[in-house]
Amino acid sequence: MSPVASNLQIDSARLWGTIHETAKFGATPKGGVRRLTLGPEDKQVRDWFRRECEAAGLEVHVDALGSMFALRKGRDMSKPPIGLGSHLDTQPTGGKFDGVLGTLAALEVVRTLNDAGIETEIPICVVNWTNEEGSRFAPAMMASAAYVGDFTTDDILARKDADGVSVAEALDGIGYHGDKPVGFQKLSGFVELHIEQGPILEAEGKTIGVVDSGQGVLWYDGRITGFESHAGTTPMPLRRDALATLSEIVLAMESTARQHGPKAVGTIGEAVIANPSRNVIPGEIAFTVDCRSADTAILDALDAGLRAAIKEISTRRKVDVELDLVWRKPPTHFDQKLVNAVEEAAKKLGFSHRRITSGAGHDACNLNTKIPAAMVFVPCKDGVSHNELEDATQVDCSAGANVLMHTVLALAGVAS
Amino acid sequence: MSPVASNLQIDSARLWGTIHETAKFGATPKGGVRRLTLGPEDKQVRDWFRRECEAAGLEVHVDALGSMFALRKGRDMSKPPIGLGSHLDTQPTGGKFDGVLGTLAALEVVRTLNDAGIETEIPICVVNWTNEEGSRFAPAMMASAAYVGDFTTDDILARKDADGVSVAEALDGIGYHGDKPVGFQKLSGFVELHIEQGPILEAEGKTIGVVDSGQGVLWYDGRITGFESHAGTTPMPLRRDALATLSEIVLAMESTARQHGPKAVGTIGEAVIANPSRNVIPGEIAFTVDCRSADTAILDALDAGLRAAIKEISTRRKVDVELDLVWRKPPTHFDQKLVNAVEEAAKKLGFSHRRITSGAGHDACNLNTKIPAAMVFVPCKDGVSHNELEDATQVDCSAGANVLMHTVLALAGVAS
Repeated sequence: MSPVASNLQIDSARLWGTIHETAKFGATPKGGVRRLTLGPEDKQVRDWFRRECEAAGLEVHVDALGSMFALRKGRDMSKPPIGLGSHLDTQPTGGKFDGVLGTLAALEVVRTLNDAGIETEIPICVVNWTNEEGSRFAPAMMASAAYVGDFTTDDILARKDADGVSVAEALDGIGYHGDKPVGFQKLSGFVELHIEQGPILEAEGKTIGVVDSGQGVLWYDGRITGFESHAGTTPMPLRRDALATLSEIVLAMESTARQHGPKAVGTIGEAVIANPSRNVIPGEIAFTVDCRSADTAILDALDAGLRAAIKEISTRRKVDVELDLVWRKPPTHFDQKLVNAVEEAAKKLGFSHRRITSGAGHDACNLNTKIPAAMVFVPCKDGVSHNELEDATQVDCSAGANVLMHTVLALAGVAS
Repeated sequence: MSPVASNLQIDSARLWGTIHETAKFGATPKGGVRRLTLGPEDKQVRDWFRRECEAAGLEVHVDALGSMFALRKGRDMSKPPIGLGSHLDTQPTGGKFDGVLGTLAALEVVRTLNDAGIETEIPICVVNWTNEEGSRFAPAMMASAAYVGDFTTDDILARKDADGVSVAEALDGIGYHGDKPVGFQKLSGFVELHIEQGPILEAEGKTIGVVDSGQGVLWYDGRITGFESHAGTTPMPLRRDALATLSEIVLAMESTARQHGPKAVGTIGEAVIANPSRNVIPGEIAFTVDCRSADTAILDALDAGLRAAIKEISTRRKVDVELDLVWRKPPTHFDQKLVNAVEEAAKKLGFSHRRITSGAGHDACNLNTKIPAAMVFVPCKDGVSHNELEDATQVDCSAGANVLMHTVLALAGVAS
């Protein structure tokens, strides 16, 4: 690699400027962003993104699910490009960094290469994936899932939001129902920069997370059926209290996950008492469970631990507990060559770093099932994400963008 | 007492018939009753009740809160009557027995005395108290509370239901805004027959509950503030999970109440997670607590136990828990003379019986703060009440009515 390429740095102020410029599209009073996929604010940021990509000399194509592919030619156009990017949609009360950082850092990489007059051997392609968040249309990460063949394009186009608007109608509505078939843009690899969305890097004072794995996920729907009765007249030993049952399940889930820590998490995020009343013992509760681990054996152990606890608790309390597994996503093991490339880039640039597991799902996890993929994490304040308070420093964002750039340069090669 | 009076039995079939006749006013498809206080079905049952009382030779007066007083003269009219009765309103999905049994058994007592040609020394008065249930207007048992001076009549008349209709408007609407001031009908005592609404009598195979006390009540509003964060990315040790916190509080409440069992109950009946989501650790939960005991020292111990548990749990989990006492009702200790009279009547009639504490609140508990009062309980199926499945046997209902009658005869005295 030439000395110019080897010492190349992105323009930190320019990257920071674009993050704040796009944060205006859907800005909330509390400093966050509400930019639901395929809505008017998403159109604004997409139009901005297309203009900036074209201004940077990229050729922008849109596929049938609205994902945007901005191609920068390489010397050897016989090879599929290295993809880099993320997503520009947000949660309903999202922040300025989730997805945005990875997409705009990818644009910043191109601008930096342009400024330095660097051509890569293999082309590179900046990607904005449609609907990573899944807040408006389910499932989350639907465009990258369709890209790797987990869903057909027609299936995804027919999905509807809460108002009955289909993905196809929403795409037409903002002019992003592209003419390219899903998968038209082959990629020889994909690298995604993202905020960690967890507290580990910050807690350990590390700048770069070299993401080598993504957690597998188990999602369950549960229902407890005890017996609704009068809070004043039912003696404690005769109760069949659904909330006390749930309480034991919550603590059993917590303790099972802790036993397998730090490689496991388990959460009960939703619990709804049927007909709640101050003086009625809860008789029925619907709840959900989310278990995650990057290790398949631990996922199985979490499942077994949860089921054993529920069996013991429900028998002892004489209540009925149903538990249905509604989704199982296997763990992601990112491509070793790409993971090593991320690690080498972090080392070369002198950033403190550690291997890390992604707790959340990302488009890169979907892509990794078919093409080599990897991710770069940077810290976010207090580990907060999916929240208007989401925050990250300019220094860390720039560090992540530089690691992204040097990873891509290593993978794509420098031609000149 | 004359042999006739001593061996007197109510007409079981007639009592059972009236219970099922009035159950038509607001009958639900599942076999229950929906007869909200001061609504059209309550007017129907009140009109029926007035007609039947008048047909039985009683003089019916209605007070300013709609409570109905049906007087049967005694030989000595210088003394206030012994009151007997209950209420005819129901829960939104109530049963055929709660309140109804006590009111119609009182009418049956009068009919039986009439048939036998028995005059009492002291007059007796059948009472139907307005709004015992409290489902439409708060508070529950408002008419008996006003009767003993806990509220002014004007205060209660101004209370509004969820549609903004005041008690005064509702009374006018059904023609039961009576011309008698609240408290006009002095009573020298009050006896209320009621289904137990709990499982104790049935579990022990006892026919009659001699109610010697009513539980005191502590009601709390609570709020847990932890930290909402991503279920996939937040390691177990760094969580501030509001639901796990609540779970420990629920189990601590349960264990504290069990320690003081069988003389205490403690329940968390409501718990609402703010912004619940399958993959978000709950950050905030609002909940309510209901603690009861007939023993003031135990009530205090429940309060202290709950607060100590919350302090320990919230400190360890680094979450904030607020707990506000919103209502404290002292325990009821029913009048010993009247309680003994109930017990003597049960003994005399040969019914299996036990002393029992009322878990629920009743008009008799309010009245007992100013005049001697007592209650008679009969078993209900599976302890179920406030439910369309509420059920009791004809044999048990008749046993209770006979105990009521012989208690009243003992208190009022037989003149002829």
